[in-house]
Amino acid sequence: MGSAYRLFYDEPLHLVRGEGVWLFDADGRKYLDMYNNVAHVGHCHPRVVDAICQQASVLNTHTRYLHENVLDYAERLTDKLPDDLDTAMFCCTGSEANELALRIARAVTGGAGIVVTDSAYHGNSKATFEISTDSISPQELPDYVVTVPSPDTYRGEHRDADAGTQYAAYVHEAIELLGSRGYKPAALVIDTIVSSGGVVSTPQGYLSSMAKIIRGAGGLFVADEVQPGFGRTGTHFWGFEKDGVIPDIVTLGKPMGNGHPIAAVVSRRDLVSAFAERSGYFNTFGGNPVSCAAALAVLDVIEDERLQENALNVGQHIVDRLLGLARKHECIGDIRGTGLFLALDLVADREDRTPAEALAARVVNDLRRHGVLSGLIGPHANILKLRPPMVLSNEDADYMIDILDDSLSRVSASR
Amino acid sequence: MGSAYRLFYDEPLHLVRGEGVWLFDADGRKYLDMYNNVAHVGHCHPRVVDAICQQASVLNTHTRYLHENVLDYAERLTDKLPDDLDTAMFCCTGSEANELALRIARAVTGGAGIVVTDSAYHGNSKATFEISTDSISPQELPDYVVTVPSPDTYRGEHRDADAGTQYAAYVHEAIELLGSRGYKPAALVIDTIVSSGGVVSTPQGYLSSMAKIIRGAGGLFVADEVQPGFGRTGTHFWGFEKDGVIPDIVTLGKPMGNGHPIAAVVSRRDLVSAFAERSGYFNTFGGNPVSCAAALAVLDVIEDERLQENALNVGQHIVDRLLGLARKHECIGDIRGTGLFLALDLVADREDRTPAEALAARVVNDLRRHGVLSGLIGPHANILKLRPPMVLSNEDADYMIDILDDSLSRVSASR
Repeated sequence: MGSAYRLFYDEPLHLVRGEGVWLFDADGRKYLDMYNNVAHVGHCHPRVVDAICQQASVLNTHTRYLHENVLDYAERLTDKLPDDLDTAMFCCTGSEANELALRIARAVTGGAGIVVTDSAYHGNSKATFEISTDSISPQELPDYVVTVPSPDTYRGEHRDADAGTQYAAYVHEAIELLGSRGYKPAALVIDTIVSSGGVVSTPQGYLSSMAKIIRGAGGLFVADEVQPGFGRTGTHFWGFEKDGVIPDIVTLGKPMGNGHPIAAVVSRRDLVSAFAERSGYFNTFGGNPVSCAAALAVLDVIEDERLQENALNVGQHIVDRLLGLARKHECIGDIRGTGLFLALDLVADREDRTPAEALAARVVNDLRRHGVLSGLIGPHANILKLRPPMVLSNEDADYMIDILDDSLSRVSASR
Repeated sequence: MGSAYRLFYDEPLHLVRGEGVWLFDADGRKYLDMYNNVAHVGHCHPRVVDAICQQASVLNTHTRYLHENVLDYAERLTDKLPDDLDTAMFCCTGSEANELALRIARAVTGGAGIVVTDSAYHGNSKATFEISTDSISPQELPDYVVTVPSPDTYRGEHRDADAGTQYAAYVHEAIELLGSRGYKPAALVIDTIVSSGGVVSTPQGYLSSMAKIIRGAGGLFVADEVQPGFGRTGTHFWGFEKDGVIPDIVTLGKPMGNGHPIAAVVSRRDLVSAFAERSGYFNTFGGNPVSCAAALAVLDVIEDERLQENALNVGQHIVDRLLGLARKHECIGDIRGTGLFLALDLVADREDRTPAEALAARVVNDLRRHGVLSGLIGPHANILKLRPPMVLSNEDADYMIDILDDSLSRVSASR
C-alpha cells in the first residue's frame, strides 16, 4: 500500500470489531473510542446496518433513475437547514463535497480566490488540498489562496470579548491581497469549529462578521460542516448556527452515513442553478439508494436517541471532570470545545502557554495502551482531541477521565 | 435536488428492485439492463450483499488502523496486475482515483501538462473535470490541457492498419503545444477503450505507441480502467493489456465494489514513494473494511462464475446477432467493441457515415419503453452503448436483440 499511508499510534492497532463506543482488537482487548466521529451514532449501529443490508439486497443504482431514498433524504436534510438552503447535491466524501462547493463558488462568482484559515484541512483532491493549510507549507500555497489566522483566543493575538470581530477583520486584508494578485474572491471556506487548527470553537461574532466581509467583496461563505455537523456541538445541529449566520454553501461528510461513504453539498437553489447552467455534474455513487438508506437511518437514530442532547449533557460532564483534572495536572493549559467535540490543550508552562508537543504524543500513546483512543490536533500537535461517537454516556466518560488522570500522572512523572 | 441533476430517458424510470441483469420499476415492469457497468457481477449479487452486511455489522473503520480486508484486497488486486504495479491506494470514486493519479503524476514529474483524448470523461472534480473533454468546450480547456483526436477508425482521419501509430503520433504535437505554452507534460490520461468518445476499442499499437511518446517527454502513462477494467473486454482483465503496455498508473472505480463506493490507484512503488515524500494523502472512507469486503466478493464472483470468459462469449454472440440485424437495418453503420462493451454506430447514410443523432435518441427511448435499458455515447450521441452487467447470458442477449430488431423497425418506419 506504500508509504503515503500512516498508522495511528507508536503501536498500531489491529481492530476486528466495533460496537457503540467500543472497539476491540485482535487479542480481544477493548478500547473506548474517544476519537472517531465517522461512527457518529456508534460503531455498527444495528439500525444503520439493517438499513444498508435491506437496501443493498433490493436495489443499488444511481440518481439518473428516480428513487425515493434520495428524495426522502434530500427533504429530511434540507428540513434540518435554514429555509434558504433548499437544494442538495450528493457525492461520496467530504473532499468531493468541498470540491463541488469550490466549483459552484468559482462558477457563480467568476472569481478564483479562496480565503481560508491557517491550519485547516478541507480534502485530498487538488483543489481541496491546496486550501488544506495544515498539510502544505505557506510557500506552496497557490497565489489564489490566502490564509487568515485561526481564531485562537487561548494562544492567538486576540483573546478578549471582541476577538470574533478582530479575527474576522483579517478577511479584509486577505481580500486585498487577492486583489493585488489579480484575483477576485470566490469564497471563504471555514470549518465552523476550526478543528485542525486546534481551536474547536469560534469566538462570538466571528462567523457572521466573516460572512459579511466576504459577501461584501462578492464571494460566498462556505461552511465546512464535515466535522461539526449532525448535532455534535450539542447546542446546535450545525456549527454555523451558533453565530446565527446562514452560509451560502454547506458541505457535509464523515458522520452522514455512520461510515458508509456519503457526503453532500447543500446550497441555495439560485446558486446551484447558476452552476448547472455552466456545467454538468454527475457522481456515479453519490446519492445511491444504499447510501441514502444509511444516511436516513443516521438521522432517525440521532432523533430517536436524542443524541444532540446527549452530546450537550455528556460533553458538559466531561468538561466538568476535566476542570477537576486541571486542578491536579499542571500540563492542562486549556479545556475548550462544545458538546462532544472537546480539546485539551497540553502545555509545558501555564503562564507562557508553551505547547507540550512531546508530552502530548506520550499521553496519546499511553491512553492507547490503557484502552482509550484519542488523537492530537493543532499546529503544534499538542492538543488532545476528544470527538467520540455521539452515544457516549457519562459512565463511558468517567471511564475515560479516570484513565486520562492516571495517564497524565504517569507521563508527567516519566519526564 | 436542483437543476444539475439529469434523468435518463424521455419517460424517467422509477426503479425499485434489481436482480442480476434485471431491473424492476414501481409498477412491476421488468427491464433488461444493458447499460449499467457498476452492477458488474449483477444487481444485488447475494455474495456481495452478504459480504457488505457481514462486515458492516462487525466493524467499519479506516486505514489508520490495521485491518486484513484492505491488505487482502491490495494483494488480490495487485496480483491481477503486472508485477511493476505493486502499490495500491484506495479512495471512493473514479473521480477521486483520477484526482490522485494527477496529483502523483504532477508531483513526481514536476510537470503540469496533461494530454487527453477529445470526448473523454475522467471525473467531476476540478482537476478531473478540466480534462473531461466531453463535458467542456475546447475554449474552456486550461492552457495545460491539450487534446489528441480519439482513435476513431470508423469516422476519423485514420482508418487503415497503421491507424494506431498514426493516432498516437498526435501526442508529439500535443507535447510540443504544451511546451510552447511553457508546460512540461505530467501525464497522458486515457480510457483504454475510449468510451465517451464512442470508439469502444483502440487500434493495434495505439496505447503502446502513446506510452512511448509521453514517457520520452518525461510524462507518465495513466490508464483509466474505470470502465474497461475487471474483465469486461473479455479478452483481458484490463483494457491496457490488449496492447501489451504496462501503464505507470492505473485508475479503477465503478465496477470494483458492484455499486458500493470504492475506487483505487495502482502504481509503481517508486512513484508512490516519490509522491509520499512531497505530500500526505488520507481518504477517510477509502479502503474501509466494508468497501474492501465488497470488492473482495466481486473478485471472487468474477473468478468463480468465470465472468471474463462469459463476457467474451456472450459479447461475441451479440456481435454475431448484430451483424445479422445490420443486413436488415440500413441505419446500423458500424458494430464495434469487445466483450461486454459494445457499440452500435447509428447512421443516416452508410456511405457518408453521417451520425443519426435523432434516430439514436428515438431508439434508446423506444428500447426503454419495450423493456431494454441502454444509453448513447460519442460526440454526436448517435452511438448505442451496450455495457450490461457481466452475468448477461446468451438468452438475455437474444431477448435484447429481438427487441432491438423491432425497435429499429419501428423507429425507422416512423421517420
